[in-house]
Amino acid sequence: MLRFESDYLEGAHPKILEKLIETNFEQTAGYGVDDHCERARELIKKACGAPDAYVQFLVGGTQTNATVIASLLRPYEGVLSAVSGHINVHETGAIEATGHKVLPLASEDGKITASQIENAYSAHINDSSFEHMVKPALVYISQPTENGTLYSKSELEAIREACDNCKLRLFIDGARCGYGLKAENNDVFLPDLARLSDVFYIGGTKVGALFGEAVVFSNKKLCENFRYMIKRHGGMLAKGRLLGIQFETLFEDGLYFEISEHAMRLALKIKYALKDMGVNVLFDSPTNQQFPIFKDEVLQKLSEKYSFCYWCRVDDTHSAVRICTSWATKEDSVDALLEDIRKLV
Amino acid sequence: MLRFESDYLEGAHPKILEKLIETNFEQTAGYGVDDHCERARELIKKACGAPDAYVQFLVGGTQTNATVIASLLRPYEGVLSAVSGHINVHETGAIEATGHKVLPLASEDGKITASQIENAYSAHINDSSFEHMVKPALVYISQPTENGTLYSKSELEAIREACDNCKLRLFIDGARCGYGLKAENNDVFLPDLARLSDVFYIGGTKVGALFGEAVVFSNKKLCENFRYMIKRHGGMLAKGRLLGIQFETLFEDGLYFEISEHAMRLALKIKYALKDMGVNVLFDSPTNQQFPIFKDEVLQKLSEKYSFCYWCRVDDTHSAVRICTSWATKEDSVDALLEDIRKLV
Amino acid sequence: MLRFESDYLEGAHPKILEKLIETNFEQTAGYGVDDHCERARELIKKACGAPDAYVQFLVGGTQTNATVIASLLRPYEGVLSAVSGHINVHETGAIEATGHKVLPLASEDGKITASQIENAYSAHINDSSFEHMVKPALVYISQPTENGTLYSKSELEAIREACDNCKLRLFIDGARCGYGLKAENNDVFLPDLARLSDVFYIGGTKVGALFGEAVVFSNKKLCENFRYMIKRHGGMLAKGRLLGIQFETLFEDGLYFEISEHAMRLALKIKYALKDMGVNVLFDSPTNQQFPIFKDEVLQKLSEKYSFCYWCRVDDTHSAVRICTSWATKEDSVDALLEDIRKLV
Amino acid sequence: MLRFESDYLEGAHPKILEKLIETNFEQTAGYGVDDHCERARELIKKACGAPDAYVQFLVGGTQTNATVIASLLRPYEGVLSAVSGHINVHETGAIEATGHKVLPLASEDGKITASQIENAYSAHINDSSFEHMVKPALVYISQPTENGTLYSKSELEAIREACDNCKLRLFIDGARCGYGLKAENNDVFLPDLARLSDVFYIGGTKVGALFGEAVVFSNKKLCENFRYMIKRHGGMLAKGRLLGIQFETLFEDGLYFEISEHAMRLALKIKYALKDMGVNVLFDSPTNQQFPIFKDEVLQKLSEKYSFCYWCRVDDTHSAVRICTSWATKEDSVDALLEDIRKLV
Repeated sequence: MLRFESDYLEGAHPKILEKLIETNFEQTAGYGVDDHCERARELIKKACGAPDAYVQFLVGGTQTNATVIASLLRPYEGVLSAVSGHINVHETGAIEATGHKVLPLASEDGKITASQIENAYSAHINDSSFEHMVKPALVYISQPTENGTLYSKSELEAIREACDNCKLRLFIDGARCGYGLKAENNDVFLPDLARLSDVFYIGGTKVGALFGEAVVFSNKKLCENFRYMIKRHGGMLAKGRLLGIQFETLFEDGLYFEISEHAMRLALKIKYALKDMGVNVLFDSPTNQQFPIFKDEVLQKLSEKYSFCYWCRVDDTHSAVRICTSWATKEDSVDALLEDIRKLV
Repeated sequence: MLRFESDYLEGAHPKILEKLIETNFEQTAGYGVDDHCERARELIKKACGAPDAYVQFLVGGTQTNATVIASLLRPYEGVLSAVSGHINVHETGAIEATGHKVLPLASEDGKITASQIENAYSAHINDSSFEHMVKPALVYISQPTENGTLYSKSELEAIREACDNCKLRLFIDGARCGYGLKAENNDVFLPDLARLSDVFYIGGTKVGALFGEAVVFSNKKLCENFRYMIKRHGGMLAKGRLLGIQFETLFEDGLYFEISEHAMRLALKIKYALKDMGVNVLFDSPTNQQFPIFKDEVLQKLSEKYSFCYWCRVDDTHSAVRICTSWATKEDSVDALLEDIRKLV
Repeated sequence: MLRFESDYLEGAHPKILEKLIETNFEQTAGYGVDDHCERARELIKKACGAPDAYVQFLVGGTQTNATVIASLLRPYEGVLSAVSGHINVHETGAIEATGHKVLPLASEDGKITASQIENAYSAHINDSSFEHMVKPALVYISQPTENGTLYSKSELEAIREACDNCKLRLFIDGARCGYGLKAENNDVFLPDLARLSDVFYIGGTKVGALFGEAVVFSNKKLCENFRYMIKRHGGMLAKGRLLGIQFETLFEDGLYFEISEHAMRLALKIKYALKDMGVNVLFDSPTNQQFPIFKDEVLQKLSEKYSFCYWCRVDDTHSAVRICTSWATKEDSVDALLEDIRKLV
Repeated sequence: MLRFESDYLEGAHPKILEKLIETNFEQTAGYGVDDHCERARELIKKACGAPDAYVQFLVGGTQTNATVIASLLRPYEGVLSAVSGHINVHETGAIEATGHKVLPLASEDGKITASQIENAYSAHINDSSFEHMVKPALVYISQPTENGTLYSKSELEAIREACDNCKLRLFIDGARCGYGLKAENNDVFLPDLARLSDVFYIGGTKVGALFGEAVVFSNKKLCENFRYMIKRHGGMLAKGRLLGIQFETLFEDGLYFEISEHAMRLALKIKYALKDMGVNVLFDSPTNQQFPIFKDEVLQKLSEKYSFCYWCRVDDTHSAVRICTSWATKEDSVDALLEDIRKLV
């Protein structure tokens, strides 16, 4: 079975494992204040062109989303998100567990717009019952989105402006950040994410690490006592250095970008091969998640040799699936998959 | 200014005030275990045809919704509600404050259907990521709804059946319960509400009391330690007898039904007068909330003498408002209003 | 049975009931923005010598404590309280329900000291694991305390200074505020409470009202969006005017002080009569709660005619009880009680 | 600098790293349902003599404590713990973040007794205000405790019996479980922990793993939908196999016990050497945490070459520190430390 259902099917990039072995018997302070974490912070700030940013490391995405969002909001405030946003759908209520409502905005492809944000805010402010409603205070977007789509720089700038106009904060979930950076026609880079968000994160779990997300606060006013929040949310890793070591490895020689590029090359190989074969897609994704629509019988046949993430039924005889590439995807596997699809469609 | 914006504009029915005066110097135990509360419980159970039900009194609707819902759910469970449900829109996140997600179902008129409930449940159960999503465990409906609409008995029975099929519980918000009971063509009465829900409440705040809601658990398995929950949510009134005395007064001689009927007679007078005048409505409401659509200039003119609850813009030149009647509405006021509308439309 | 177990045994002062009747058919906006609430706010600010304070009304004490405390704290912050503080013992975890830890300080008599506060704060700050611990951010005291004791002005000033030194906020629970103001040797008056706290409240439930607590924020930075918090906590009374009308009545002609004085005169009558009889007390209380220690057989005998609040066992043959007076206590009842005690001890 | 301040100073046992490398390119399903996790579960159930237990893996101790405790309690329930318990002191309110109060019991050495538990429970049940207080529903103990002390089998059996008598559940924090199993005079083994608790966990973070805790539910009634809880708390590791692989390695050939024994041998070497030198201790610990008391000048001198965890000031001239050994401690380091202490005391 060759698996394509997600981008977290394997362990970690071998260089990370090597570094873990190399450092294994160093004795370090716990909880992320060791030298590896410090160095990783510096490397990330440099990559973001944000020398004054504040960087902390957490273990996983849901934990990061809940910790950051709970840290930014007062109790009666909520977070605007695409209805399909990870925090609205796939975190078992981790945001609500911190007392906050996710305020959903309609979205076809995982993205939301500056004008949706402004409308939501002004609808709240102009409602005579505003005190009876959750106050929008934060915007959550993901780059790339859960549907593989990407914001352009001008879209992000418009969202930033909307946030400024409405005194909202902007949090960008970068769980698949690397794949976005290396996506087709992408014009949003780490310094843009740092500059345009109040806080965002660089995902490690899906991009070469065993686990780990690097949270970058550009807005230093918001990071006060963030480490208390990490501990409170069970995200303060005792051997915090494990996070430092991994991000050090990913960012010291550009490994993060290199492996993201690898995944993207294979994703686009799939995308255009499918296009050539006339396979329709659910979302036109420029990133490492592709969403082809197959006849159910084709899908059944393919599923004997390949695993995908079933996404949704499209009509009585067709379904959409998600196919992911990652830093670990082998070109041979992609070629085998494409060949088998070609035979079937 | 004659006010029609809500059904809680005045104090309480004079009989309630009389009873408060009459009992004022009785010394009673606090927290709702006094004789007045006990008697009110018996009267309510009788009115519900539910001699084994468990009854407690709370102060207001949001408090009741949050306390009941938090009491029924395990942490990872959520509550299905019409997207327009009071708990989803107008409680400043009181449900989320208890850690629970409101799972919204589409609704045009404030109602949801049995099949929507079954679909939501089976979508959850059949999703391979089900553990990553909030588990639907409870259905919240209001009777009448926030839009003045009513469930018929057969609709409620279908919802109950859906809940049974899906092992969901059913909670009915009866903040305006009385006006539903006396609504045009209503076939759902207190014993139906008790029989078909696991727990529901009979609203006092909007139906003759100074404040107060009577929560009725038909499903006794669910009420264990509910009084701890009331206290924890700040809803345990020190002078609990005030709630008992009010519900005693409302239910000892049918006052609750009588004053609801009064409100409904005036509401229908408005409804049919507007219909005769050719005024369109936003929702076809058989209850005490009416939602006429006026030209903006008509509305502006009317607003010099009458207050309404502005509901929404309908088009560039028209808006919908909510007009409420209540136990306290005077027929003269209604007549004056109708006459002035007649002059303007 | 003559009851002395609490100070919320009866309804409300007759003037309040009269005012409720008088205003019953006024039509007012809901949720505490009506003219009665406005006037009550002005009267309270005047009584507090705090023209710039921000005043809101809530229904009960636990609700007020939870709403204010949740409003003042960031998620990882906690509230210092006497171990015997109401929030630590008698609110079924209403503070923890908002996610906050109550940080208990030892106390014999219900009071805490400035140095305890400073020590707790510096212990936190100087601990190398400080981020692993709840951060003290707020001090909660009650005046009078749950044990009937009172802070002197100099004690309160020292606590305020400690709070300033440690950047802590000070919240004073004044559920029995009136009885403190009129207590023996009291030198702390409303303007002192307003000046020395960031926020405090004036209790109505136990001092003449049917229910209601008036929250006074001297520190205006802390009240932003407090009304959202009230709604979220289920404390936004639909007929908010009921609170306004009650506090208007209590504060327009000094009724609050007058009825407090009545309760205190009777409390001191009990206190000194018991002292004369040689009855020991658990706490030396200058306020309306008295804590005599009786032989169990005396207590049993008295309990045939009088009800007390059983407080604790003192030794194998003695128990302490709480005896309360209030605005509604009748001198005849007190005399009867004292005579019966005299016969028995 | 030789570090003794904690038992999580190094990475992981080399066999774990080897296994991570060996399995690195296996493709597995995420979230802990892979074959490695399944095999680790079987090994752990076998080691616990509990073939029917339910086992899940989480990343760290605070996360585990909060997730388990929130899963076991209804909202108004609290957890009894030694006042020095990790959940009461060192988790930044992670338990309160889930809405639950930690109900502290006095403790000198980190342990609590069966009679304390029974007293706390009966005090609650017999209090007339019981509904106004958090209901004790769960007992939390740690084995070994935060002070290095251990419960004997008979003590644990008495606690179990107290829990049964009071219908309380028992949760045992085994973050340092391995060191307890191999402690001096220990008579509590894994099957005892499984048999006597409702749920307990076997710590990996401090005993050879990079991270990870294995939660074992003996009481299967309590584990329903526990995986929803894990996800909700941000503890569902995407590459869940990392936890499976580590526990597989620790339990397939007795590595967990072997490395625990190593740590304990060195801990006892320290313990008895210090005893011989006449160094007093704060707690008489039979486990891997030792708490010697040094003159401040001795401590200062030692701190030039060794790091300890400062515990507390004992008197004007003495302080207690914590010295830990672990699976990774080198005998040479211990010998060097002891020799330097010997020279100074």
